[in-house]
Amino acid sequence: MPYEFKTIRRVEFSETDMAGLMHFSNYFRYMESAEQRFFRSLGLSVFRGGDPPVSWPRVHAECDYKIPLYFEDEVEIHLLVAEKKPKALTFAFRFVKLNAAPPVQVARGALTVVCVTHEADGRMTVCPMPKIALDRIQAAPLELLQSR
Amino acid sequence: MPYEFKTIRRVEFSETDMAGLMHFSNYFRYMESAEQRFFRSLGLSVFRGGDPPVSWPRVHAECDYKIPLYFEDEVEIHLLVAEKKPKALTFAFRFVKLNAAPPVQVARGALTVVCVTHEADGRMTVCPMPKIALDRIQAAPLELLQSR
Amino acid sequence: MPYEFKTIRRVEFSETDMAGLMHFSNYFRYMESAEQRFFRSLGLSVFRGGDPPVSWPRVHAECDYKIPLYFEDEVEIHLLVAEKKPKALTFAFRFVKLNAAPPVQVARGALTVVCVTHEADGRMTVCPMPKIALDRIQAAPLELLQSR
Amino acid sequence: MPYEFKTIRRVEFSETDMAGLMHFSNYFRYMESAEQRFFRSLGLSVFRGGDPPVSWPRVHAECDYKIPLYFEDEVEIHLLVAEKKPKALTFAFRFVKLNAAPPVQVARGALTVVCVTHEADGRMTVCPMPKIALDRIQAAPLELLQSR
Repeated sequence: MPYEFKTIRRVEFSETDMAGLMHFSNYFRYMESAEQRFFRSLGLSVFRGGDPPVSWPRVHAECDYKIPLYFEDEVEIHLLVAEKKPKALTFAFRFVKLNAAPPVQVARGALTVVCVTHEADGRMTVCPMPKIALDRIQAAPLELLQSR
Repeated sequence: MPYEFKTIRRVEFSETDMAGLMHFSNYFRYMESAEQRFFRSLGLSVFRGGDPPVSWPRVHAECDYKIPLYFEDEVEIHLLVAEKKPKALTFAFRFVKLNAAPPVQVARGALTVVCVTHEADGRMTVCPMPKIALDRIQAAPLELLQSR
Repeated sequence: MPYEFKTIRRVEFSETDMAGLMHFSNYFRYMESAEQRFFRSLGLSVFRGGDPPVSWPRVHAECDYKIPLYFEDEVEIHLLVAEKKPKALTFAFRFVKLNAAPPVQVARGALTVVCVTHEADGRMTVCPMPKIALDRIQAAPLELLQSR
Repeated sequence: MPYEFKTIRRVEFSETDMAGLMHFSNYFRYMESAEQRFFRSLGLSVFRGGDPPVSWPRVHAECDYKIPLYFEDEVEIHLLVAEKKPKALTFAFRFVKLNAAPPVQVARGALTVVCVTHEADGRMTVCPMPKIALDRIQAAPLELLQSR
């Protein structure tokens, strides 16, 4: 669907810290990974995709942690497009631990990304998202967002 | 000072990504590193410190990115204790790029951590922070927080 | 099989560096991840598995890089048990890029791990691997190892 | 000195794993960080430095682990230029834990890097190292290498 994506990961040893939990910074990698796969599922790319090539640097990231994740926990990352503006997208994420009965939401997060073109000298300029992204990415229906 | 701490880092090659920037998840590692050094400067530890030993898992993390950081940029991480509750602390962070004339704020963030004891079976229980932390950590004066 | 395991990953954005390649340190995370899944496939765990619980810290790690891996490359990690001693295992790894025609070996590596028990004070003591690991993990046939 | 460099780090929380130790992959980041600072101390850069700009991708990396490193351990990384060829350098590393009496060597490692230019299409081509690197980087005297 153009506004929703789910992907599953298992927590790896290198993602844990000495407290025995998944390190809090790795939730942000998981969010980005889900975003990447979402773009890929729509035939888009998060980096230098399209013509002209655009990328999507982050301007905001946040996460609320409720229940820890441990080594080898199986976690579903659920992405919704929470907001779509001409030059920016906000994704809302839920983390659900699947190896629990019943599965339980353990964290939630958000990323706001802006569309940029790359200048010859490496600088990035914010720009309206290209038509292909505009067409393929939709904001989730309000009731879906509110049910979270 | 019991409510403020500054530390400096230089962006490493392994902290960059293919966009040429410091990866956004590493700002969270930088925040945690500043928090760690702040605790250390007060004779405390972020992990199993004190008697009984307490730790400080994160319940909220956020970051706003304004200007990218590049390889070998020198960045000052400025920590303020934004809020002190009996069982929780909120830290506010500013990232200032020093190799710019004049130095420029490139990002800001926050972490909220709660005080926990560790049960014998590994579970963590939220508890009031021990007297030593209560004595040594103070909330920053309001005018300092507002000037940011 | 008790001496061979294959697993597939796609290179993530956060695993790249400013040179545009997968950062060389991440090959070691990929090796460990394959080892973990190999143990798991045999009903074992790399951390505090069994009775008494044993773990497998690394004493040697190496990697040879021939062809770079890029963002979203699909790579198969192929593990073979190269050597089995009473207290140690050596794994040999091949990395094969699948999105190439034909698929091409891009790197090879090795990990040597030793079996340890955990003392009450946290120290680790090298010990013979438990019967369950001895039974389930086998060294690969010589001809398989030589064909690499 | 043109063949030796020392730098000190303190193990961070995010660098530990659930076994309570610094994760083995981070020793490779520490090696690279020492290499980077060594280049910098000589007025060179590991990435797109010089004219024409050259970089130094890794072709081999290895590490032997003797004694674990824990959170907040202070570790000196000692780099020696072990071999200098027209198109390649090999660095030898020692890790010394300083907060031990007396300080103790806990690990040793090596990196082999090759000099490359970047083509317009992003491809890298191995090339002789530029005169500035040739002049400023020397191989360590044999007796220094053997004393390790």
